[in-house]
Amino acid sequence: MSKKLIWKDLDRKKLNSCRIFDLYEVSRLSPVGRERRFFILDAPDWVTVIPVLTDEHGDECFLIVEQFRHGSSSITLEFPAGIVDEGESPENAALRELIEETGYMAGNLINLGSVSPNPAFMDNLTHTFAAFNLELVAKQNLDDDEFIHIHKIPVKEIQKKMGTEHYSNGVMMMALAFYNRWRKGI
Amino acid sequence: MSKKLIWKDLDRKKLNSCRIFDLYEVSRLSPVGRERRFFILDAPDWVTVIPVLTDEHGDECFLIVEQFRHGSSSITLEFPAGIVDEGESPENAALRELIEETGYMAGNLINLGSVSPNPAFMDNLTHTFAAFNLELVAKQNLDDDEFIHIHKIPVKEIQKKMGTEHYSNGVMMMALAFYNRWRKGI
Repeated sequence: MSKKLIWKDLDRKKLNSCRIFDLYEVSRLSPVGRERRFFILDAPDWVTVIPVLTDEHGDECFLIVEQFRHGSSSITLEFPAGIVDEGESPENAALRELIEETGYMAGNLINLGSVSPNPAFMDNLTHTFAAFNLELVAKQNLDDDEFIHIHKIPVKEIQKKMGTEHYSNGVMMMALAFYNRWRKGI
Repeated sequence: MSKKLIWKDLDRKKLNSCRIFDLYEVSRLSPVGRERRFFILDAPDWVTVIPVLTDEHGDECFLIVEQFRHGSSSITLEFPAGIVDEGESPENAALRELIEETGYMAGNLINLGSVSPNPAFMDNLTHTFAAFNLELVAKQNLDDDEFIHIHKIPVKEIQKKMGTEHYSNGVMMMALAFYNRWRKGI
């Protein structure tokens, strides 16, 4: 990588605290010595869990959550996902989000990879896991502003529709891409 | 989709204007009638262009831009990408970003799909295109805060590494997933 592309930090100022991220204005010095200001979201890491199970016909399915999303003002179909709490490992966050949103406990959790959801203005990572040996052990345990329906949907359908219709969350495309590469390797 | 999951808009207040997005606080009424506040980024749409060409060995390559990213404070390897200007079509934005960042003009542009980069708190879409019949017609034409190196990298290498090392931008995983589905269909 070329060091000629690197900007130098000058200072940063917090503009807002917004529960799921803090907004900062940062000043940086360009590779040719010009000062510029940028806006950055400082956010905790995220996790996405792909829960893999078999339906009553023997078809391989993913567990999918249906929920209202406040950015797009629309209902989406997604893998269970959430925020890694402070001091929590991504693995524990994945297991916790899975059981809270679906009631399922995973006997086997595979780490598929981590990536920046958007390095242009975010400083966090999103971690993707696959969950196997699923057992329904609890009821959903949702925050009082969470309303989620659960569906068991054939993998084939999700592979075909991801990125279209209600499968409209790009972070789920990242997760499925990690899963597909891992599956090819096993 | 279940209408029981839908929240109702009450009001919204702009907190900050941040050049590449505006930060809003919105109030909404939950499906069971509780009022909650959420933070949302109102952003223009984005485009990503996958430029496909052949190198001097006859291997299929993508054009890749190497640049410093201010969110992650790191250098990344990505497809050319940018913001759709007001009144501009995503197609024109894709052609414009391609020529500005790389100097290449595309003879053939394929629309691969659009998805929300993050419906949890963003209201925009990111559009992905593949560009073929590329011809080097100009020098890079960068903003004075853009510093970009260009590379021709074999598709096989990018397929293997996307989401790892310097291929650390999740939006590029979305783009490559659209491209791979389209390639399977041709």
